[in-house]
Amino acid sequence: MADAEARAEFPEEARPDRGTLQVLQNMASRLRIHSIRATCSTSSGHPTSCSSSSEIMSVLFFYIMRYKQSDPENPDNDRFVLAKRLSFVDVATGWLGQGLGVACGMAYTGKYFDRASYRVFCLMSDGESSEGSVWEAMAFASYYSLDNLVAIFDVNRLGHSGALPAEHCINIYQRRCEAFGWNTYVVDGRDVEALCQVFWQASQVKHKPTAVVAKTFKGRGTPSIEDAESWHAKPMPRERADAIIKLIESQIQTSRNLDPQPPIEDSPEVNITDVRMTSPPDYRVGDKIATRKACGLALAKLGYANNRVVVLDGDTRYSTFSEIFNKEYPERFIECFMAEQNMVSVALGCASRGRTIAFASTFAAFLTRAFDHIRIGGLAESNINIIGSHCGVSVGDDGASQMALEDIAMFRTIPKCTIFYPTDAVSTEHAVALAANAKGMCFIRTTRPETMVIYTPQERFEIGQAKVLRHCVSDKVTVIGAGITVYEALAAADELSKQDIFIRVIDLFTIKPLDVATIVSSAKATEGRIITVEDHYPQGGIGEAVCAAVSMDPDIQVHSLAVSGVPQSGKSEELLDMYGISARHIIVAVKCMLLN
Amino acid sequence: MADAEARAEFPEEARPDRGTLQVLQNMASRLRIHSIRATCSTSSGHPTSCSSSSEIMSVLFFYIMRYKQSDPENPDNDRFVLAKRLSFVDVATGWLGQGLGVACGMAYTGKYFDRASYRVFCLMSDGESSEGSVWEAMAFASYYSLDNLVAIFDVNRLGHSGALPAEHCINIYQRRCEAFGWNTYVVDGRDVEALCQVFWQASQVKHKPTAVVAKTFKGRGTPSIEDAESWHAKPMPRERADAIIKLIESQIQTSRNLDPQPPIEDSPEVNITDVRMTSPPDYRVGDKIATRKACGLALAKLGYANNRVVVLDGDTRYSTFSEIFNKEYPERFIECFMAEQNMVSVALGCASRGRTIAFASTFAAFLTRAFDHIRIGGLAESNINIIGSHCGVSVGDDGASQMALEDIAMFRTIPKCTIFYPTDAVSTEHAVALAANAKGMCFIRTTRPETMVIYTPQERFEIGQAKVLRHCVSDKVTVIGAGITVYEALAAADELSKQDIFIRVIDLFTIKPLDVATIVSSAKATEGRIITVEDHYPQGGIGEAVCAAVSMDPDIQVHSLAVSGVPQSGKSEELLDMYGISARHIIVAVKCMLLN
Repeated sequence: MADAEARAEFPEEARPDRGTLQVLQNMASRLRIHSIRATCSTSSGHPTSCSSSSEIMSVLFFYIMRYKQSDPENPDNDRFVLAKRLSFVDVATGWLGQGLGVACGMAYTGKYFDRASYRVFCLMSDGESSEGSVWEAMAFASYYSLDNLVAIFDVNRLGHSGALPAEHCINIYQRRCEAFGWNTYVVDGRDVEALCQVFWQASQVKHKPTAVVAKTFKGRGTPSIEDAESWHAKPMPRERADAIIKLIESQIQTSRNLDPQPPIEDSPEVNITDVRMTSPPDYRVGDKIATRKACGLALAKLGYANNRVVVLDGDTRYSTFSEIFNKEYPERFIECFMAEQNMVSVALGCASRGRTIAFASTFAAFLTRAFDHIRIGGLAESNINIIGSHCGVSVGDDGASQMALEDIAMFRTIPKCTIFYPTDAVSTEHAVALAANAKGMCFIRTTRPETMVIYTPQERFEIGQAKVLRHCVSDKVTVIGAGITVYEALAAADELSKQDIFIRVIDLFTIKPLDVATIVSSAKATEGRIITVEDHYPQGGIGEAVCAAVSMDPDIQVHSLAVSGVPQSGKSEELLDMYGISARHIIVAVKCMLLN
Repeated sequence: MADAEARAEFPEEARPDRGTLQVLQNMASRLRIHSIRATCSTSSGHPTSCSSSSEIMSVLFFYIMRYKQSDPENPDNDRFVLAKRLSFVDVATGWLGQGLGVACGMAYTGKYFDRASYRVFCLMSDGESSEGSVWEAMAFASYYSLDNLVAIFDVNRLGHSGALPAEHCINIYQRRCEAFGWNTYVVDGRDVEALCQVFWQASQVKHKPTAVVAKTFKGRGTPSIEDAESWHAKPMPRERADAIIKLIESQIQTSRNLDPQPPIEDSPEVNITDVRMTSPPDYRVGDKIATRKACGLALAKLGYANNRVVVLDGDTRYSTFSEIFNKEYPERFIECFMAEQNMVSVALGCASRGRTIAFASTFAAFLTRAFDHIRIGGLAESNINIIGSHCGVSVGDDGASQMALEDIAMFRTIPKCTIFYPTDAVSTEHAVALAANAKGMCFIRTTRPETMVIYTPQERFEIGQAKVLRHCVSDKVTVIGAGITVYEALAAADELSKQDIFIRVIDLFTIKPLDVATIVSSAKATEGRIITVEDHYPQGGIGEAVCAAVSMDPDIQVHSLAVSGVPQSGKSEELLDMYGISARHIIVAVKCMLLN
């Protein structure tokens, strides 16, 4: 069936007439001129890569895509994702193979959440198809039958350092796309009529995404630069630019323009602001529940509060407990399988244009796989929420490769990222609700073992507001923990109080932003003594964040307890003790600090 | 030609006799029993995944592979890389799709550097083939005709959360492997004779790697667990284990064993210890050269000093200047194209068993793509060296996505990783030589713009030893820089000295380990005042490393200058100033600190 649709004849009424084809060709020439001018003026950019895809851009933007030129963010517009860098497009949502995953998220949202007519087009370079994340996205799109998605491979043969592995063997691209389940066309990327045809055919194909493998030429239209090596990312020499522009201009035969077709207005209205849980947390102080499970429950509760909450997972849903959401709202759950990069990109696509509130979860250690995608999401100021379970040595038996000991360091580098590290079930539920409403990226770090509920359902939580759990006028040291180490700090406080040594215990709740005011005032109240204790490597973690925050205050000293060295596998409590972050170690550190 | 070889008839002399087949089947049963016992005793592990691949393991280890049982690290042995987790294998070099890239590095080394007979086998699960890095490795292996490499896809249908996308449709795996250029066999993974045959056939095929797509069953041999969902990573219930083991034992018909074939001893002897440059650095103080270029020159020089130095790059060799090495020693250069994860894995494979000294380079920002692979390499205590160019806002025009502002934070979390951040060409050359000899992973951070040579050729450099560039008895503040910011600190010192304000200037050279002794003694000599200045985000960077190192010293205060916020594109010097890390900002910070 799909094959018949894929070869459907191009009907008269959809075909561009000669005049239109000429205009599309002229538009391509104008784009080339524009890219040469723009890159010459800044002495930086990729005019040769722009040239190879000018016809593709002209056909898409002036003949195929449906959108309101005056309202580029309109939800009904067709989407365009640029994975290669073109100087005539202002914002590139992804590169190095990240764009297609984002496009998958948009297409999934269009097909399954919005159930709307808009289509998604993603233009990629051949070079970036070496990136594995492209093939994660290819597998995802066909598995989910994203027939509203078109990926264009601009096969111009040349990468940054010369010829690419497949050069102009476009049948290699074709075979790979087909093997990954895509309806695939091969086309001369300079032929505007052929391009019009394949994009139209793609619109007829059901249940399969379409790949357009376009054979193109880098530097197209510029004598001695076209298809030549060593012109990657180089502006034209200024002295030649005028002559080149004149040559291209001479091929322009009409000043006629084309207006894009208007979009079909069938996207639902959505409201994702001011999302609130419909009831307070349903836990009693003293209950035992893992924060990873409380997080799954909170997602389901949030899903009830707002029907645009969607959850993604990477083949770990029984461990992260996102399965609880999946069970309640299977139509809003996306299984991304073992492909963490693509999961993050799909989440970015789902959240774009404010169409959904997206939460993506997996083991926090596996998120290192997606650091570059998270980084780019941060630069784009995306609102996605990422949940990382199984943090630290408290994971226990699974061994170091499964323990996240660097995730705080990673997310702290993301500009404007909010990092939640909830300690109990109540604070976890608040973290999920706050993340749903927060601007920018959020990360929620959850713990594997069960921990006791310490907050009442009425407790209020805010981003950047730590909780002081123990304090009295005789406090001598401030101990700062988060997550599992809060319990170690509380146990230490109990034990020390029997010896008439009193410590202040702080639960950070958010690691970024850090509640510097509470930290400093507590430190001042405890004669300048701070001990931090975290289930994370020392580098880039809570200890360093606190040290940096108080580094200009001569009256505050910080002693940091963290996991140093590569942990073995073992029981959770044993490992906390073996790697120096248990109550016992806190007690020793407190006593040492008091001796100095 | 390859097709004829791929279908070559299984000759009598290579065929296992009935007795041997029975032993192989028995060995598989014993492996199953072993995995059930091992996982029961620790209450943790993956016995069902072990069961699916028992026949594959038995055929490989007791019939196909050539190795010395008594000497597992022998360079002539065939290699086995396990990408899935099996409880009867002690060390897994990779998982989540990382193993195949490592196997590629071993196979590349065997074919092109060692030119030896050993073969490389990589066993993967079907679940991890969702990871894009698998397809990066697939493309790499066929591009480089790695006919000494066999990848086995253990298609047991089930992942962590249930059925995988392709389930038991092994033709999907077959088509994808073929499209990526591999000689591919489909086989019943329970049939030891068929397995013997395809592995033998694989050995006959030239110029292509071989994929064996094996249809298997998770929990094979265990009634009601075989092929059932929800048994992933679960030991058998203890009460059933004995009965299951008895059942499997009843199928064992002989106690005969098989000895593996000995390896062919044709690997060259290699010496990669105590590698020294054959001449001192050939730069004069005052020369201007970018450290990224000096790094490329140093690699070529090192390549001259030792013929086992190999360099990898990811389509950036003209920018990282690894092209200089490529030009001198093309036979020792591996172009990995845009696939940073695979580049790191291939380097890990090249460096395994001490066969090469591997350096892998790309833009430091793109290394975030490979964080998980770097992390696993760190856990494995691999000796690879990674070079990241184009760090920080000093990159200039290319924009934030190309500027590494989180790479120091990333590499600092890698246990035992040495981080070099050389300032000029002389220190860069020393960094390369020190990295070649250092144990554990090394990272060298290089800068895009040209910088002045400040060290004489005779200067000596050591890991963990900072350089004090300016000091006098009247110093009031210690300013700590590295790379480009050292020049800003020196300019600030010059300007301040005109105003009779003297500062001590430190060039860290290595960020990890940090030269705490020099930092503390300098701080003490400058009334406890430290200013750090770095072309990196504050989080996890030099400032935090210094703050943490002196956090228990009440007499030392640290003020940190770093890049905060997402940088725009612009000229290098403009950006240094715009983001607060230029000489002007250092001068202001010094004066502020003196006022307090």
